[in-house]
Amino acid sequence: MKKYKKSDLESYTLGTTLTLELLLKRPDITKRIYIHSKQERNETYQKIIEICNKNNIEIIESDKTINNLSDKENCYVIGVFQKFEEKIDYDENHIVLVNPSNMGNLGTIIRSSIGFGIKNLVIIKPAVDIFDPKVIRSSMGAIFNLNFKYFDSFQEYYKNIKDREVYPFMLQATTNLKDIKVPNKYSLVFGPEASGLDNSYLEIGTPLIIKHTKNIDSLNLDNAVSISLYEFTKNEMEDL
Amino acid sequence: MKKYKKSDLESYTLGTTLTLELLLKRPDITKRIYIHSKQERNETYQKIIEICNKNNIEIIESDKTINNLSDKENCYVIGVFQKFEEKIDYDENHIVLVNPSNMGNLGTIIRSSIGFGIKNLVIIKPAVDIFDPKVIRSSMGAIFNLNFKYFDSFQEYYKNIKDREVYPFMLQATTNLKDIKVPNKYSLVFGPEASGLDNSYLEIGTPLIIKHTKNIDSLNLDNAVSISLYEFTKNEMEDL
Repeated sequence: MKKYKKSDLESYTLGTTLTLELLLKRPDITKRIYIHSKQERNETYQKIIEICNKNNIEIIESDKTINNLSDKENCYVIGVFQKFEEKIDYDENHIVLVNPSNMGNLGTIIRSSIGFGIKNLVIIKPAVDIFDPKVIRSSMGAIFNLNFKYFDSFQEYYKNIKDREVYPFMLQATTNLKDIKVPNKYSLVFGPEASGLDNSYLEIGTPLIIKHTKNIDSLNLDNAVSISLYEFTKNEMEDL
Repeated sequence: MKKYKKSDLESYTLGTTLTLELLLKRPDITKRIYIHSKQERNETYQKIIEICNKNNIEIIESDKTINNLSDKENCYVIGVFQKFEEKIDYDENHIVLVNPSNMGNLGTIIRSSIGFGIKNLVIIKPAVDIFDPKVIRSSMGAIFNLNFKYFDSFQEYYKNIKDREVYPFMLQATTNLKDIKVPNKYSLVFGPEASGLDNSYLEIGTPLIIKHTKNIDSLNLDNAVSISLYEFTKNEMEDL
C-alpha cells in the first residue's frame, strides 16, 4: 500500500486510538487494519480485534506497511477506510469554510464543530483535502461523525439554501458576536487563514465580528470558529 | 550561529513578517538580523532596515546562517533577540497553563491571550520552552507583548496570589462557563493537553466547564482557552 494521494478512493487512520474511533463509528466503511509487531496487546488492541472479527474486517500484521505510511515512530495501528460520500443536511446548521488551506486547522475545526453539535460542514474550493490523513488525525476521529460537501464557489452553496440566517465572520463587520440572538437555523461562514473574507461578504446575511484588541491582527482560524460555535450553542449544551 | 537550544541566552524569529514584529515591539532586545540574498527588497524589507539603522542593530547578509536555522525554504529574514526576563504583574488577570507540552498550542494561546487583552501568562513546570522558535512563530509575534513566569508547581504560584478569583477549567466541574459573573481580577487555569487538570483542582477557586456534546472527549487546549478568554473579556472588548 502506498502513501495517501488525493485521487485515492481510500484513506487511513494513523494510530491505535484513532483507528479504534474509526471502527467504533464506521465499521461499515473500514476495509482492513494493519498492525505493527510492536503494538502492545492491551485493552484497546483487544477491542480493535473484537470489532474487526465481528464485522469481518481483515487484520494484517505488517511492520513494512506501517513504516511506509506513517512518519511517526510510535504509530502501531493503521485503519484503511473507503472515503465516504459527500452530503449535507439542508435542514441543519452549517459551518462554511471558504478556501481553508491548513490541514491541522481543518481537523481541529471538525473536532470542535462535532463537539458543539454542528455536524454539517461546507467547504468552498480551492481548499485542502478533508480525507488527507493529517486532517483525519487532527480531527481525532470526529470526522467520522461529520457530513460534509465541497462547492466550487460560495454562490453555488448560497443558491441551495433557504430559510436560514447566514453569518459571515469578518473584521470588517460591525455587529458584535456577543450581541446576536441565535435564530432557528444558521450558517456560520469563515474565510481563508491568511486573508479572511473579502468585502463582498458584507452584502451577505449578517456579518459578525469577534472583537479583540489591536495588539493582534486576527485570531487563529480554528480559535475564531470555536468561539463562534460556543456562542451560538451555549444555551443548548446545558441540557446534555 | 547554531540551531536554538533551551540553554541559549538568545532565540530568534523565523521569517520576514515575524522579524518585523520583533523590531516594532522590542528593538531594545534585538541583537542582529540575518537577511537572505533571495529576500525581496520590498516595503517590509525597507522597514526592517530602517528600524535596524535607527537602533544600531547589526544587519548580516548570510544565506548559510538562514539555511542553518530554518527548516522552511521560504524563510529569508531571521531576527536574533536576547531572551527577556521572567516577570508577571500580580495586579492583572492571568492565564495559567499547567504542564503545556505542545509548542504550537502555546504560541496560539499567547496570540489569543494578547488578542483578548490578557498579558500575563503563568506556566507550571514541566512545560515546553516559551522561547523555542516554534512557539515564537506560532504566537505570530504576540509573545513580544507578553509577561510570563514559570513556577515549579501550582502551589508555588497559588501562594503568591491574593484578592482574585481562580477558575480551573475541567470536565469534572459543574459550574458552566456561560453562567459566570466576571469578577474584578481573575486567573484562568488550564491543564495538560492529554489529561486535563486532575481532581485536586476541584478544591481550588471555582472550577468551570465548557459544556460540549459527548461526541468528543474534550476540546483542543487552545480552543478551550480562546473560548474562555472570549467569555471573560467580551464586555470589555466592545469599547475598543
